Amino acid sequence: MIYITRRERFTAAHRLFKAEYTDEKNLEIFGKCSNPNWHGHNYELFVTIKGEINPETGFLVNLVELKNLVRKKIIDKVDHKNLNIEVDFLKNKFTSTEVLAISIWEELEKEILLLGARLHCVKISETENNSVEYFGENK
Amino acid sequence: MIYITRRERFTAAHRLFKAEYTDEKNLEIFGKCSNPNWHGHNYELFVTIKGEINPETGFLVNLVELKNLVRKKIIDKVDHKNLNIEVDFLKNKFTSTEVLAISIWEELEKEILLLGARLHCVKISETENNSVEYFGENK
Amino acid sequence: MIYITRRERFTAAHRLFKAEYTDEKNLEIFGKCSNPNWHGHNYELFVTIKGEINPETGFLVNLVELKNLVRKKIIDKVDHKNLNIEVDFLKNKFTSTEVLAISIWEELEKEILLLGARLHCVKISETENNSVEYFGENK
Amino acid sequence: MIYITRRERFTAAHRLFKAEYTDEKNLEIFGKCSNPNWHGHNYELFVTIKGEINPETGFLVNLVELKNLVRKKIIDKVDHKNLNIEVDFLKNKFTSTEVLAISIWEELEKEILLLGARLHCVKISETENNSVEYFGENK
Amino acid sequence: MIYITRRERFTAAHRLFKAEYTDEKNLEIFGKCSNPNWHGHNYELFVTIKGEINPETGFLVNLVELKNLVRKKIIDKVDHKNLNIEVDFLKNKFTSTEVLAISIWEELEKEILLLGARLHCVKISETENNSVEYFGENK
Amino acid sequence: MIYITRRERFTAAHRLFKAEYTDEKNLEIFGKCSNPNWHGHNYELFVTIKGEINPETGFLVNLVELKNLVRKKIIDKVDHKNLNIEVDFLKNKFTSTEVLAISIWEELEKEILLLGARLHCVKISETENNSVEYFGENK
Repeated sequence: MIYITRRERFTAAHRLFKAEYTDEKNLEIFGKCSNPNWHGHNYELFVTIKGEINPETGFLVNLVELKNLVRKKIIDKVDHKNLNIEVDFLKNKFTSTEVLAISIWEELEKEILLLGARLHCVKISETENNSVEYFGENK
Repeated sequence: MIYITRRERFTAAHRLFKAEYTDEKNLEIFGKCSNPNWHGHNYELFVTIKGEINPETGFLVNLVELKNLVRKKIIDKVDHKNLNIEVDFLKNKFTSTEVLAISIWEELEKEILLLGARLHCVKISETENNSVEYFGENK
Repeated sequence: MIYITRRERFTAAHRLFKAEYTDEKNLEIFGKCSNPNWHGHNYELFVTIKGEINPETGFLVNLVELKNLVRKKIIDKVDHKNLNIEVDFLKNKFTSTEVLAISIWEELEKEILLLGARLHCVKISETENNSVEYFGENK
Repeated sequence: MIYITRRERFTAAHRLFKAEYTDEKNLEIFGKCSNPNWHGHNYELFVTIKGEINPETGFLVNLVELKNLVRKKIIDKVDHKNLNIEVDFLKNKFTSTEVLAISIWEELEKEILLLGARLHCVKISETENNSVEYFGENK
Repeated sequence: MIYITRRERFTAAHRLFKAEYTDEKNLEIFGKCSNPNWHGHNYELFVTIKGEINPETGFLVNLVELKNLVRKKIIDKVDHKNLNIEVDFLKNKFTSTEVLAISIWEELEKEILLLGARLHCVKISETENNSVEYFGENK
Repeated sequence: MIYITRRERFTAAHRLFKAEYTDEKNLEIFGKCSNPNWHGHNYELFVTIKGEINPETGFLVNLVELKNLVRKKIIDKVDHKNLNIEVDFLKNKFTSTEVLAISIWEELEKEILLLGARLHCVKISETENNSVEYFGENK
C-alpha cells in the first residue's frame, strides 16, 4: 500500500453563522469569523489517496489525472468564490473547515475509486496555524 | 543604518471592481477577482523600518512597540474584515494589493517616526506566488 | 471522526544532560546539545484533537478555546523560558523533544476532554529537520 | 511509543520511462516527465522511526546516529546523481516517487532495527505539491 | 513607484562543466555539480517588476498577463527540461544560477516594457539555501 | 553585478539585558527576553554577496567556499552556544538581533573580499515574524 498526497490551493470568502441566530448571537458564538460582510482565506487542500502500485505503469495513479480531477471537482467550484453562497456541494451547509473537509471527501471518494485508488485523507489548512483532517466515516 | 522587518498576518474578503463598470466589464478586466460575492485571502504584511541603533537600549526600536503599533493601526482594522466595505483607510479605494500597500504605508509612516525610526518598506503577500512592495514616494 | 490541529510556537533554552554524569560524559553522549551554557530553539507545537462534529455549532470545538487552552497550559509556561529549570511540568525531567512531547500530552489530555474532544497527537518540531510525535500510551 | 522524523534533502536527475516503449509511447503515458534528456528535483526525504524511549538516555535513538545512517545509506548515493543510472538500490527500477519511497524503505528497515527502533514511514516530497508515503508491507 | 513580484516554479536537469575541460578537471572545479550524468532542481523564479499604478485600472499591470508572459517566455522552455541541452536562450551557456538569472533577465526585459512596467529583479532559488538576484547591467 | 545569498542556520541561547541594570529594570525594558535563565532561538542567517561573474568559472564565487567560510567564521562559533557568554566576536556586546547582524558583518566583510566578492547584506531571522538586515556603514 502506498500513499500519495496532492496539494492544491484556492482562495475564497466565507462566514461562520447560523441563519436562525441574530448577528449578535452569531458574534457571541463564532466571534469575528461571523462578520456579516465576510472574510476569506488562502486555503490549502491536501488530498491523500492510497492503493497498490500498478505494475504496468510503475505508479499508483497518474498524478496529472489526480490533479485534473481535484481541480475539476473541487478547485474550479471554490476558487475565488464565496463558500456560503456559490458552491453546489456546500449548499445550506455551515462553512467551518470541518464541514468543508467532509464535503470535499464526499465529492471525491467515488471519483478516486474510478482512478483505481482509494481516498485516504482530505486535509485543509485554513491558516498556517489551523488545519483539519478527515479520514472518512470509519476512522 | 539597520533594517528591521516585522511580519503580521490577517485574513480578509475583498473584490476587484470599479463601481462605474457593469459586472460584465469588471469580469472582463479583473477576471475572477471581480466576483460580486467576494473572495478572500490570508494576507501577510511585512513592515520594514530603518534607523540607527539606540546606544542606550542596544536596538533600533522595541519590537513589542512595533508589533503593537502595526496591530493597532492596521491588523485590528483589516483582520476578518471586508476590505472594500469596512476599513476606514481604504474608503472608496480600489483594493488591489498595490493600493493596499500604499494605504498601509500612509497609515504607518508618521507613527514609525514617533517610535524613533523611519518606515522603509511595506510588503504584502496576497498568495504564495504574488506580492507587492512599496518604498514610499521617493523611491 | 474529525481531526483538528492547532499550531503554537515558543522559544526556549535547554540542555541535554544527566546530573549524575560529568560534563565530559554528557558531552560524549549528548554532543553539543549538552553545552552547560545552554542553547535554544524556536519550537513549533502541533496539538491534534479528534471527535465528532457538534451538530449545534457545526464544528468539533471552538478553535479559540483550544488556542486559549494550549496557551494557558503550555505556551505561557515554556515561552522564553529555560526548559530545564523553570517549567513545573518538566521538573526533574530530561528535556529531549521526546520527553517534552509526552509531558505536554500529559498536561493536555484531560483538559481536551473537558472541551468535548480527545487528544490525538502532540507533535513538536525542534528544528526544520527534526520532529517528534506522541499519540498516547496505547498507540 | 514515540515517533521521530528526520528530514534530509537531495537533488537528483531522473526520467519516467519504460525501456521497452518508444519515446512516443513514453511521452504519451508519462508526459513531460519522460523527457529523454532528463529533468530533476530537490527531493525532501522524511524518515520516521518509532519505539520506546530508552530510560538510560532519555530518547529513542541518538539523532546524530539517525542522521548519519540516512546520509550514509541514502543521501550519499542519490545526491547530485541520476536516479535512473547511478544508484545501486534503484538498479533496473522505475524511478517514480512511489518506487523511490519503497526502495529507500528497503534500504533502511534493517538498519533502523540496529539502532534500536523500527522504521515507521518513508515520505518523499518531489515538489511542494506532490509527496508519497510508504509504511511498509503490512500497512 | 510600486514593485510587484510573481513567483513561478520549474524543475530541470543541469550540469556545471566546461566542454574544454576533462571530466576530472570539471570535478575538481565544480565538484558534484559537474556529474556527467546530470542532477536537477526544483527551481523557484521570482520576477519583480516596477512602475506607476495605472489610474484607470488601479494596478501596475494585470497579474494574469505577467503570469502568462513569464510562463510563455521562460517556464514553458525550461520546465522538465535539461538546461544544458534544450533551452534556446541558454544555448552554449554555462548553466550556473548566476548565468540563468542574467539570461532570464535578457528574455524578459523588453517584454515587461510592453506590459507597461520595468523589470527590476530576477531572483532564482536553486535550493532552500542558495539563491541569486540580478538587477540588470546598471546596478 | 550579481547577488548571491547563502542561508545557514544555528540554534543558540541568549538574553537581552544590561549588566548595570537590576533584573527588575531589565524586565521592564526588555520584557521576557531578559529572562536571567536564558531563552533561545533557531536563527537563520542569510549572507548576500555581490560582484561580477568570473568569466573563467562562470560564477561569482564557488558556493562551497562561501558555505565553508560562513560555517568556519560564524556558525561553528555560535551554533549550540550561549551568545552572551561563549562567542568571541560578541564579547561584552548586547545580543539583540541588530547587534548580531552588525557583528557578523564585521567578521565576514574582509573574508568575502578574499573570495573575490563584496559583502552586500547580512540578514538574520530570529523568529518567523522578526528579522534584521544590515548593509554596512554606508547604506
